[in-house]
Amino acid sequence: MKFYDCATAPSPRRVRIFLAEKGISVPTVQVDLRNGEQLGAAFRAINPEATVPVLELDDGTRLTDIVGICRYFEETHPEPPLMGRGPVDKALVDSWLRWCDREGFYAAMDAFRNASAGLKGRALPGPDDFPQIPELAERGRARVGSFFSRLNERLGASQFIAGSAYSIADIAALVTVDFCGWIKLKPTEAQPHLQRWHAAVSARLSAKA
Amino acid sequence: MKFYDCATAPSPRRVRIFLAEKGISVPTVQVDLRNGEQLGAAFRAINPEATVPVLELDDGTRLTDIVGICRYFEETHPEPPLMGRGPVDKALVDSWLRWCDREGFYAAMDAFRNASAGLKGRALPGPDDFPQIPELAERGRARVGSFFSRLNERLGASQFIAGSAYSIADIAALVTVDFCGWIKLKPTEAQPHLQRWHAAVSARLSAKA
Repeated sequence: MKFYDCATAPSPRRVRIFLAEKGISVPTVQVDLRNGEQLGAAFRAINPEATVPVLELDDGTRLTDIVGICRYFEETHPEPPLMGRGPVDKALVDSWLRWCDREGFYAAMDAFRNASAGLKGRALPGPDDFPQIPELAERGRARVGSFFSRLNERLGASQFIAGSAYSIADIAALVTVDFCGWIKLKPTEAQPHLQRWHAAVSARLSAKA
Repeated sequence: MKFYDCATAPSPRRVRIFLAEKGISVPTVQVDLRNGEQLGAAFRAINPEATVPVLELDDGTRLTDIVGICRYFEETHPEPPLMGRGPVDKALVDSWLRWCDREGFYAAMDAFRNASAGLKGRALPGPDDFPQIPELAERGRARVGSFFSRLNERLGASQFIAGSAYSIADIAALVTVDFCGWIKLKPTEAQPHLQRWHAAVSARLSAKA
């Protein structure tokens, strides 16, 4: 088994935290995103989507998606469960995970990638080049504000995002909130539930992963 | 149990097809998206995100996400499995489902919502209003072209999207391809594997759902 990682990037960090919560260690290779290694022929032969993380299984199967990789480990190492226990909890975890990605992570990505000087012509990850759209960066920042506000409301009613147990949805949101620091957006004192939660999930040993 | 649906909309259709494949029938309420019922106070009390589908369980729990709803039924009605059987298949289904959403469905939504005369000021679903960005509509169309091309390549190597079994990833892609018809984008004869697959999944009884 081999894990293609990039220590500084948000997406593979989500898998690293998941693995740390499960107590799993996997042989890891660093991919140098800063110098475009993911866009070179050698890495594209591993993942044509030109993204990390990738998990290569011993039979050669390659999983090229954050959640797909986590699902594999959830099934092979069920304890502690990070994707819900029982039909309703599993459904709530999937729902909140997708909400965090759609409303938070993609919004933050729009804001960052459409404004960063180093990403001109690379407004989206993946195999195709797209020019930056400044209005999309602005919209992304506004959406992050709305995400923080709605997440704060949710966390006023629930200890963790999907309910009373820490889950993959908390990992997605933690990495998103930390990523938003790159674009100078942070939860404020007007969002006390979000701040309480962020301090709690950041204090877990896994957050250092 | 109650299912909030809209017979003409792509997102709830994904759940309807999933239910049809499982042979499950659920009492259904139609929400009139065309006249903005989802944005009114009555529906926002049901789902603050102002979107369909919603599944209300008998204990009052509301699931407001396509995949979350499907996960609930996958767990309560495991046969036939539509989200994979065994760790590797489940991981591949999750991976391809997310790929179809990110590269296909969201791209088509960008193309449609940022160009449709009826959606000025509503470039995204959800509780917040955002103006249309014409460049994003154009980018969406280009991304749909790339999605078709990459999906064609995948379907040259695999009977269904996630492997040898029909899955929720096929449902996501079928609804996306049909939705692309709204913006006059269709698979071409240069994409024979995609056309073969589209004919096959469209011929299933569930596709009428």
